[in-house]
Formats: sequence, structure tokens, C-alpha cells
Amino acid sequence: MDRDHILLTPGPLTTSLRTKLAMLKDWGSWDADFIAQTARVRRALLDIVDGHDTHTVVPLQGSGTFSVEAAVATVVPRDGHVLVLDNGAYCKRAARLTQLMGRRATVVPYAEEQPVSPAGLEAQLNADASITHVVLIHCETGTGVLNPLAEVAALCDRHGKGLIIDAMSSFGALPIDARATRFDALVAASGKCLEGVPGMGFVFLRKAVLEGCAGNSQSLAMDLHDQWVYMEKTGQWRFTPPTHVLVALASAIDQFVEEGGRPARLARYEDNCRTLVDGMARLGFKPFLRPEIQAPIIVTFHAPAHPAYEFKRFYDAAKARGFILYPGKLTQVETFRVGCIGAIGRNEMNQAVNAVADTLREMGIPSGAPAP
Amino acid sequence: MDRDHILLTPGPLTTSLRTKLAMLKDWGSWDADFIAQTARVRRALLDIVDGHDTHTVVPLQGSGTFSVEAAVATVVPRDGHVLVLDNGAYCKRAARLTQLMGRRATVVPYAEEQPVSPAGLEAQLNADASITHVVLIHCETGTGVLNPLAEVAALCDRHGKGLIIDAMSSFGALPIDARATRFDALVAASGKCLEGVPGMGFVFLRKAVLEGCAGNSQSLAMDLHDQWVYMEKTGQWRFTPPTHVLVALASAIDQFVEEGGRPARLARYEDNCRTLVDGMARLGFKPFLRPEIQAPIIVTFHAPAHPAYEFKRFYDAAKARGFILYPGKLTQVETFRVGCIGAIGRNEMNQAVNAVADTLREMGIPSGAPAP
Repeated sequence: MDRDHILLTPGPLTTSLRTKLAMLKDWGSWDADFIAQTARVRRALLDIVDGHDTHTVVPLQGSGTFSVEAAVATVVPRDGHVLVLDNGAYCKRAARLTQLMGRRATVVPYAEEQPVSPAGLEAQLNADASITHVVLIHCETGTGVLNPLAEVAALCDRHGKGLIIDAMSSFGALPIDARATRFDALVAASGKCLEGVPGMGFVFLRKAVLEGCAGNSQSLAMDLHDQWVYMEKTGQWRFTPPTHVLVALASAIDQFVEEGGRPARLARYEDNCRTLVDGMARLGFKPFLRPEIQAPIIVTFHAPAHPAYEFKRFYDAAKARGFILYPGKLTQVETFRVGCIGAIGRNEMNQAVNAVADTLREMGIPSGAPAP
Repeated sequence: MDRDHILLTPGPLTTSLRTKLAMLKDWGSWDADFIAQTARVRRALLDIVDGHDTHTVVPLQGSGTFSVEAAVATVVPRDGHVLVLDNGAYCKRAARLTQLMGRRATVVPYAEEQPVSPAGLEAQLNADASITHVVLIHCETGTGVLNPLAEVAALCDRHGKGLIIDAMSSFGALPIDARATRFDALVAASGKCLEGVPGMGFVFLRKAVLEGCAGNSQSLAMDLHDQWVYMEKTGQWRFTPPTHVLVALASAIDQFVEEGGRPARLARYEDNCRTLVDGMARLGFKPFLRPEIQAPIIVTFHAPAHPAYEFKRFYDAAKARGFILYPGKLTQVETFRVGCIGAIGRNEMNQAVNAVADTLREMGIPSGAPAP
């Protein structure tokens, strides 16, 4: 039997059959029909952030991290100084790629179970005038914590600093309004809350900023200014686009709009998250984060204290019941993660909780409660 | 009516329905099943070049150009000096990305209608001892010319120079044997002669070289050493893989093996190419290249001399008949290109020739003959 597993992972995630069916066609990348698909996706993406007046959006081949690197490489001048607000694994990755490309980066560490602090950022900006850009991860998928985007953006605006937002796992679900929130670059990807398949990212870029970004990037592949100029001129991607991924995203966006757009998507994910957290609580499991800073995207749970618990066995037993969980990404505390996003709803979350209950029984673990 | 067009393009190309059907499933990128798919693809790729003893293969998200950039960034040390043998658009692109990342590059220009010259390379290597690496495009898709891989590789070997081969549009069809041909890196992609969908590349790297490549790349995304170390340790990709593209490639490789592997693939493409060139010759069209240097991958034809010819109209009329042609990429001569690769055979090539004949009639062009 080859029924698909439900992916409770933060992308790749479960997509609808309709999204996958869109891939049953080959497209010429140079052809007008594909050019129209690309234009349609770009327009729809700008709709989601109300960015038509101020921003453009540039798609890029590769994973979301490729687009984060491209955003930094394109927007930050070679003598720029980037402040990375670090409360998790994806923040550390953004800092690493910034330093690797030779840009100066200062990393401000925060506890992983806390949002980054706007007050801390303000102090940092006051203390070091050489900072040109701030990098913020909107929802840190390492834990699932929601960072204070509006406050950070307002501070960057007031201090005249560029802001680069990694909104990989929040875009399409959590509210982001380019008219209210000032940013230079905002990065997301096809295989996240828009529920497309993985294989491309996209970066919203403030047009007034992007126009001055020629020559910043030392990487041809990562140069979003070059990609933008070429795409505006020809409608085409500079290099072979992932055609099937793009048309799957176009279909996924159609379904997103039909569902009721971002507010409806968020409402479904919030319901998924609540169903999951409530159900897991009944089994004794405890989320790693306080509820008020928990984004409804991915939930980190403490591992059960019971000595029979072992993640690999737990994972395999849940998989045997049809659900793919996700490992933790914390170094200090033993955890695992469960995604709330994808083409899934309350039924799937309840089924997942039941599968976890069965898994605990099989493992001889009476409660998912962590060590006190 | 929404019947698929036949793509006579050098990738994205026409793939089989079976290859596309492989994408109707979502995979967890962390899961053992997907790890097994990645391992299977890597093994099968090494089979094709007989590279298991000497080389490893590292897949990379993005288009083929991303993998070319990654190969240069990973293999060439920061103080390296790259000689690019340039007889076309893709050579120029390789030179540009090398220079952009701050590596020294010397470009040796050749005529676009000629292969690059091994004698010229030898003179260059004798004249400049600072050269550390040579970049060769195996089949220059700009024109379709086949470059002398064996001779260039032997020269690089004799002179102790590293060789980076862009085999994007030749790999899987033209013979490449890692036991006979010495190279440091050889680059290809999913959506070319293996007839997968576009969205990932892969680079064959000589293990003895790769082991010393830590820290060469200034780009995190492009660092094949980092990707390799992580993949060997975990079986996973460092960053979200294009899961659907990878499993489509796995299926395409199954079909490649069933067809009879590389020799059978080449035989089909040679037949496609012959059918095309012969049929087009009957209509008066003349290929840009001499037959002995024409790779059976993509054929550049001179534009007809008749004043009624205009590429856009010609393209649209052929498309209306079900065939997607490809524009020329030469600056001096007006041409167009027709691909011979993809999940197509003699029937499709004959149908394409008939469609071109009908197109000429519609346009009132009695012959495809170019200006004398």
C-alpha cells in the first residue's frame, strides 16, 4: 500500500493533489505561455503583501536559503555592516552566509525560547553607527518562535537602517503589509505556507533600493538585481527556471486565493496548531515555547521524560501510522517538532494526535510529560 | 484543446509521462525514504561516468548554471587562475561568474563555428605557468558545437592543471568515462539528456581534489564541499531539496537504464538529429555548423534569406502546429535552434519537419535556404 504520508514538517509539506497535477505538463522556459505564468505568480505574490507601489518580487531557483543569501548579497553593499538578531538556527545560518561572502556581520544572541528584543536592537543601533542593515527571521523555524516584525521594522525605519526579513515560514499565513512595514528585502519560498512544492524562493525588494544594487553581488547566480533587470526586460528567468515548480506554485496560489487568502490560511493554521497542542497536552506533552510567542507554523515539544523514549523509535512508529514528524533543532534541550502547515486541516491534526497516542502505547510510555 | 506541445528546446525539454507522474507524491526531506532516493540517484549518476573509484557526485539545488558556479567556487582556490576556452555564450557565462567571484580568469576566444583548439590550449599553458584550472564546455549549446573533451583533458593531465567541464547538454548522451578522462569537476543537470525536469544540477568531483576544497567557496549556497560533507554524514541535503524534481530524476534514470543506458540514448538522439537535418535540408534549410563538429543535441540553422521570414512569426506558426522551437544565440548571424533531445523520437522529428514545411507555406516562403 502506497498511500501518502502526511508531512508534519515545515516544508517540504503536504501539498494538494491539484497542486501536484499542475506538474504533469512540460513548459518551454522561453515561451510566452511560461512567461505569462511567471508574471502571474509575481503579481499574485505582490498582492499578498500589498507591495505593488513600493516593491517588486524576484523569483530565484533553489531552496529558500539560496534566496536569503541572494537577498544579502544583492541588498548589502560590499562595505555594509549587517546586524543579525539571533534566536535560533536560521538566524545563525543567515549570519554565516553573510560573513562567508565577506560582508561584516555582528550577531546579537538571544535565548532560543524568547523573541528577539526591540529594546536590545535599539541599544545596539545607538551604540554602533556603522550598522547599515538588520537581518530578522520572522518565524524562527528552529523553535517556532514569532519575532516582533512590526517593532523591529519601525526601529530600522526610524534609524535609517535597511531591513532584510527572512519570512520563509510565515509568508502567506502571518500578516505582512508592505504599506505598513518598511523593509528592503523579504524572503520566502514556494514550498511553505503557500503550499507549493519546494525548488524556488522569491524576494520582495523595495524598488528604490534595488535600483542601486547593481554590482553588489559577487555571485552571478545570487544576483537578484541582474535577475530582476533581465526579467523586467524579457519576462524570462536568466537561467533555466524550475518550470514544474513554478506552475505548481501558480496553482497553489490559485487555491490560496480561493480559500480566502492569507487570513483564511492563517485561521486554518491556527486551528491546526490549537488542535495539535490541545491534543498533545492530553497525552502529557508540553510545548517548548510559551503560547503567546508560539507562531502557528511549527510547534516544538519537549521530549517525554520516560526512559523508554527515543526519538528514532518514536519517529518510525508515528511514520508507520502515516505521519512524518520532524526532529528538534535545539542543542541544549531534547525536543521534537510538529508542523501545522500544508494542505491539511483539523482531521489530519486529530489523526496525528491519535497516532502519537498509539505510538506512546506501543513504546510503553504512559505520558508524554517532560522532566519537571 | 490542451495537448502538450513538443519541446524542441535544450532543456527544459519534453519528459515522459512516467517521469512527471513521479511528482504526484510529497516527500519529507529528512525522511529515510527520501534519503534513499537521493542515494540511489547519486549511485546511478556515478554509474553513467564509471566514476565510483575516483569521483563523488554532489547534487545542488537550482539551475545548471548554479552548479557551474558552485564547481568553480568549490574547486578553484581563491588565488587560482582559470583559463576559459570560449567558443560561445555558455563559455562567456562561465568566465563571467568566475571573474565575479573574484577568481582570476583568462578568456581565450575561438570562433563560434569551430571547436576550441587543443593546440591553442597547449600554447597557452606553456606560455602562462600561473594557470591552475581550465574550464571547457563540452557541447556549446549556443551553437551546438562539440568540443574536443578527450584532447583537452589529456593536455590538462599532462600539464598538471585542474579541469572543470560543463557537460550540461552532453552528459547522459555523449560518452564520458571518468576512468579514461581525467577531470576535477564535471557539471550537468536534471532537465537535459537524462530527461528529468529542471530544478537541480549535480557535479562530479574527484575525491582527492574535493577533500582539499574546504573554505574555497565564499558562497554558502554554492559550497559543494560543505554540501558533500553534510550529505555523506547524514544522507540529507544541507538545505531544502527540490524533492519532486529529485524523484522525477530518479524515475527518468530508471527509464534511461531500461532504454539501454547512454549508448541507446545517444543512438536515439543521433537518429533524431539526422532525421531533423535531412528533413530540414529538403526544405532548403542549412545548419550553421559543419556535420563533423555538430553534436546531436541541438542544431543551429541559418534563418531563411526570404524577406517574408521573421523569427517571431515563424516561431508562433510552428507553435500553433504543436512544436516549440528555440531562438538563436549568435550575435553576428541570424539563426534559430532546434533541439534533438528529450522524450521524443523519429516520429516527433518528422512531424516537426512537416510542421516547419506548413509554416513556410503559410508565410509564403518557398525555401528555407539562407543567403548564399
